[in-house]
Amino acid sequence: MLSNKDSSVDVAIIIGSKSDWSIMKYAGEILNEFEILFHTEIISAHRTPDRLFSFAESTLNNSYKVIIAGAGGAAHLPGMLASKTIIPVLGVPIPTTYLNGVDSLYSILQMPSGIPVATLAIGKAGAVNAALFSVEILAVNNKNLSLNLVKWRQKQTNKILNHPNPREKKN
Amino acid sequence: MLSNKDSSVDVAIIIGSKSDWSIMKYAGEILNEFEILFHTEIISAHRTPDRLFSFAESTLNNSYKVIIAGAGGAAHLPGMLASKTIIPVLGVPIPTTYLNGVDSLYSILQMPSGIPVATLAIGKAGAVNAALFSVEILAVNNKNLSLNLVKWRQKQTNKILNHPNPREKKN
Amino acid sequence: MLSNKDSSVDVAIIIGSKSDWSIMKYAGEILNEFEILFHTEIISAHRTPDRLFSFAESTLNNSYKVIIAGAGGAAHLPGMLASKTIIPVLGVPIPTTYLNGVDSLYSILQMPSGIPVATLAIGKAGAVNAALFSVEILAVNNKNLSLNLVKWRQKQTNKILNHPNPREKKN
Amino acid sequence: MLSNKDSSVDVAIIIGSKSDWSIMKYAGEILNEFEILFHTEIISAHRTPDRLFSFAESTLNNSYKVIIAGAGGAAHLPGMLASKTIIPVLGVPIPTTYLNGVDSLYSILQMPSGIPVATLAIGKAGAVNAALFSVEILAVNNKNLSLNLVKWRQKQTNKILNHPNPREKKN
Amino acid sequence: MLSNKDSSVDVAIIIGSKSDWSIMKYAGEILNEFEILFHTEIISAHRTPDRLFSFAESTLNNSYKVIIAGAGGAAHLPGMLASKTIIPVLGVPIPTTYLNGVDSLYSILQMPSGIPVATLAIGKAGAVNAALFSVEILAVNNKNLSLNLVKWRQKQTNKILNHPNPREKKN
Amino acid sequence: MLSNKDSSVDVAIIIGSKSDWSIMKYAGEILNEFEILFHTEIISAHRTPDRLFSFAESTLNNSYKVIIAGAGGAAHLPGMLASKTIIPVLGVPIPTTYLNGVDSLYSILQMPSGIPVATLAIGKAGAVNAALFSVEILAVNNKNLSLNLVKWRQKQTNKILNHPNPREKKN
Amino acid sequence: MLSNKDSSVDVAIIIGSKSDWSIMKYAGEILNEFEILFHTEIISAHRTPDRLFSFAESTLNNSYKVIIAGAGGAAHLPGMLASKTIIPVLGVPIPTTYLNGVDSLYSILQMPSGIPVATLAIGKAGAVNAALFSVEILAVNNKNLSLNLVKWRQKQTNKILNHPNPREKKN
Amino acid sequence: MLSNKDSSVDVAIIIGSKSDWSIMKYAGEILNEFEILFHTEIISAHRTPDRLFSFAESTLNNSYKVIIAGAGGAAHLPGMLASKTIIPVLGVPIPTTYLNGVDSLYSILQMPSGIPVATLAIGKAGAVNAALFSVEILAVNNKNLSLNLVKWRQKQTNKILNHPNPREKKN
Repeated sequence: MLSNKDSSVDVAIIIGSKSDWSIMKYAGEILNEFEILFHTEIISAHRTPDRLFSFAESTLNNSYKVIIAGAGGAAHLPGMLASKTIIPVLGVPIPTTYLNGVDSLYSILQMPSGIPVATLAIGKAGAVNAALFSVEILAVNNKNLSLNLVKWRQKQTNKILNHPNPREKKN
Repeated sequence: MLSNKDSSVDVAIIIGSKSDWSIMKYAGEILNEFEILFHTEIISAHRTPDRLFSFAESTLNNSYKVIIAGAGGAAHLPGMLASKTIIPVLGVPIPTTYLNGVDSLYSILQMPSGIPVATLAIGKAGAVNAALFSVEILAVNNKNLSLNLVKWRQKQTNKILNHPNPREKKN
Repeated sequence: MLSNKDSSVDVAIIIGSKSDWSIMKYAGEILNEFEILFHTEIISAHRTPDRLFSFAESTLNNSYKVIIAGAGGAAHLPGMLASKTIIPVLGVPIPTTYLNGVDSLYSILQMPSGIPVATLAIGKAGAVNAALFSVEILAVNNKNLSLNLVKWRQKQTNKILNHPNPREKKN
Repeated sequence: MLSNKDSSVDVAIIIGSKSDWSIMKYAGEILNEFEILFHTEIISAHRTPDRLFSFAESTLNNSYKVIIAGAGGAAHLPGMLASKTIIPVLGVPIPTTYLNGVDSLYSILQMPSGIPVATLAIGKAGAVNAALFSVEILAVNNKNLSLNLVKWRQKQTNKILNHPNPREKKN
Repeated sequence: MLSNKDSSVDVAIIIGSKSDWSIMKYAGEILNEFEILFHTEIISAHRTPDRLFSFAESTLNNSYKVIIAGAGGAAHLPGMLASKTIIPVLGVPIPTTYLNGVDSLYSILQMPSGIPVATLAIGKAGAVNAALFSVEILAVNNKNLSLNLVKWRQKQTNKILNHPNPREKKN
Repeated sequence: MLSNKDSSVDVAIIIGSKSDWSIMKYAGEILNEFEILFHTEIISAHRTPDRLFSFAESTLNNSYKVIIAGAGGAAHLPGMLASKTIIPVLGVPIPTTYLNGVDSLYSILQMPSGIPVATLAIGKAGAVNAALFSVEILAVNNKNLSLNLVKWRQKQTNKILNHPNPREKKN
Repeated sequence: MLSNKDSSVDVAIIIGSKSDWSIMKYAGEILNEFEILFHTEIISAHRTPDRLFSFAESTLNNSYKVIIAGAGGAAHLPGMLASKTIIPVLGVPIPTTYLNGVDSLYSILQMPSGIPVATLAIGKAGAVNAALFSVEILAVNNKNLSLNLVKWRQKQTNKILNHPNPREKKN
Repeated sequence: MLSNKDSSVDVAIIIGSKSDWSIMKYAGEILNEFEILFHTEIISAHRTPDRLFSFAESTLNNSYKVIIAGAGGAAHLPGMLASKTIIPVLGVPIPTTYLNGVDSLYSILQMPSGIPVATLAIGKAGAVNAALFSVEILAVNNKNLSLNLVKWRQKQTNKILNHPNPREKKN
């Protein structure tokens, strides 16, 4: 369901460096499950700051309704995108070698009053949930999507309810 | 702009205990600035779990589009609300006496894959930004609100641009 | 010694996801050593919240005297069980990939006044000790079990007293 | 409802130094509410180790069913009591000046496999909940106490349900 | 020795919000001692991102040789300045209410390979030392300044050598 | 019992800055109780490095048997003294404004293999215990001091044993 | 140079569990280098508390001049030994699976005023330095040992001075 | 481009132990890219303190304009070099086994007012950026180097701009 620059692309997944994709691809998988079109791009806040600004400014003219930004270390990408747009920005702290992503977390989470970034969990769970949260935002005005989300959730619930015994062998 | 149970109330601000209001009231002030109606209620995940469930289930039938949940310590309120609804849930970690809100933060942030909660900064900045993020979500399908948000941001920017000198005396 | 839904099952071991069993099985092994019947079930606070409530409410009518709950990350399972029952709830923080279980620990430990959860160590030692603590609770009114516990402890003590030399080779 | 050395005293509250009482007295207040007799004593693991041992050994001959131990810093009191008795030991981490009680927490929580201590939250909430957890343990074999606990919980729940509005003025 | 936009201004002190001046003014005091001209300006990475870029781009045409940037929380100011200039950027982590400046520190320190920011200590010591480090950089090609620095250091050393007794009363 | 440069002075208390004396004076009080002569001096590892070296080298020719060094922040004093002498060096981490002395602790504690510094608790307890540990070292070859230490300990023990009730009023 | 219960054994190395020997053996290697006799024994504070007391009491009648105690997690061994003897006790925090030995560190370091334990670095460096610090204590009254220590240090220094180039290949 | 003791060597890379070279060699690689001559030497603050002083004092007479110092654990090397010279000292915290380099970080970063050390990120990114920051310092008075730096940066930017798609396969 991926598409670049299509006029009906609802979500943009931006990452700070190519290696972040190993985590952020899980956001893409979820969006695919919901058949939501998304754009992906590597934009480094520090190595390509001008591209960050031009991308953020372009959001006025394209169809994005949510931006998902994953970054690690001194992770300025989500906050700087948020400083340049009023589209909801979801930040995913990418795990780091020495500080386990706590550096990424603090850099994304602790935004000052006035410029919000909404932060998800460190790593893969955060990538998955950023996508699901995007779906929730899109579903606010989309009954169909809302129903799909309910079904997705119910399926997830049933997986556990149908196999409640931790000692059951996989088959 | 406060209203209870009105059919056009877009946002619910739920807090885990009365004392959390000293932080979360700043979310209310922002929503008031944007003339967005909101419901407020104290619902303790641990002391009133049944009320938590009945409230979450009621979201199917009322007009809420976003839930803001502030809680401290073992802060289960945002996550448990999220487990029972598909409306976007924004979590605000309330500062705590001994762990400075890091306990609240981890309890809210580290949700497992499948049930998203979007987390804002610890304390007052988080409350303000949860409200602004709600406005951003509502603005996704509301041009007027979108324009108001742009103006609000510009005003905020101008405050600094007009007084760029840190040594200027207040008057 | 495992049994499901038997009328004389004293302990329930509940886990938040199937993968937690690799840690929590050690609680089961200890209960087996003391020939204490226990129920095991996967109940996710976030993915199966209704099951959490129905299970907690069922404790009024079955024989459980202690609940052991193991969960990781934003670990709401022990606290939410405690919110719905007055049976003692023991929480075991499951280790996590990035935060080493400190997120699990704070989510379980920092319960507000009024709804107690008693927390054990992070990981395997916590699982073992949750089971032993259950035995201690059951032994409060069971002289026989009390004596077995004293013997178990003595055996454990003797293992060290009989081999006090760290450089002795295993044989 | 305080009593020393009475043959029907169910709970002992032991603290590591006199100053810990400012926190641990809240455990006493809860036990009083439930009319549960308790013994209190200052026993420093480090300054009065022999008294710690003689107290722990005396538990064989007196009526204690639960020990609550509050200590701060390198808090060895709960773990050393647990090493010398099979009565359930509940540990309360007392807040400390520089490390906010995280030192106390780790010293109490991270017991090795074989000697369980069940840990409550840092500070006052931990003291309150240690007492409530003791009541839960005693209630395992005491229907009356069990009913009192249910009532106590319901009263606590009602306090919030009756005043769900955070902006309601106190009167 | 303060001056704005003078063609011989060597240092710029940029802060993220007006309140940061209470810490960063100590950098100004040191530069004054060395009679080094400096520019000061409030530039919020998040509230005035365009101003951040225009300032950074202006460094090509003015005389700044070092930029000192103080910011708190998700402190993106130093890193974003560094992304847009090749002048040395010194970052000072401003203390924060709940995380004591560790959030500021990680946001400033953990820059990715390729865009350096040099970080000083959290708070006042960091502000003082950022100024002294600026002097050291300027002194690399300025014998006179180099000598002044040696004298300043010697004076500081003598203050301790002349009063080595901690119990000496001040007079 | 204070004395400077006396040939029978057994202990030197060195501090990194005058303000550290508010903590380290408690070490002096304990040494006075045991009538042990000690030297005190402010030596900053960073502001008076040459004095640090000359002092450390002088230990070959004077009577010091133990050095107590208190320092805060990037606390290099104990480790650098240890690098220049083979007299036992005891380090006391002085509390700091933003990092609560954890910075001091890590700077003192984490010495590499080959150059030992023995670290005491952060703050006042560390100062007191550094002095007591010095007495223990001196007592290794001093029967009299050894007996005094036993008496001091017994007195400390008795203080608790004689007033075991936390609710006893002071008079 | 190992010896058990010999009347001239100067040092005892006590560990909390057999697995700690993989770290603490490095203390033994250093003592061997200095030809210092030492006793080794596994004494678990929690599993063999009575043995801990009998060992500590025996120090009155045997020749130990220093005790080195290595323990992990809720590491009560060094502190409880110190509570029962006036011989210097050196604590080595053993690394732990989830908290990296910070739990061990806080449990050992944060002793209350009155009962000193001197703490070394976490893990192998701590074991090595505990042994070297023991040698320093013994050398206070032993000129020969003192000279050996000076030589040992010089050898260590020369290893670096003779190979100061990091890019030199090993041969 | 490496050279020892040449009169035109601008940078010295000093490391605390040979093993630090596996991290710090990346600083050397960057300096080579810019054809900047540098000296490398292992100087342990604790094992070769006299060499540390003689090296620092020699900086008066040789051509070094910047010192890069990498050290781990109780990392005193950068701060002690800074205490003895007025040349800019850049500190790189080397990762450590148990504390992930946070000990190194605090030991380097938290210098007291008066003796500045500028700190880079933990590990490899810090080594690379220390070298780049050195180039920035040297470029302050070197137009050519300044242009090279701009080109280097542009190349780095282009690498991302030319391959903005995270899912593009490497070839």
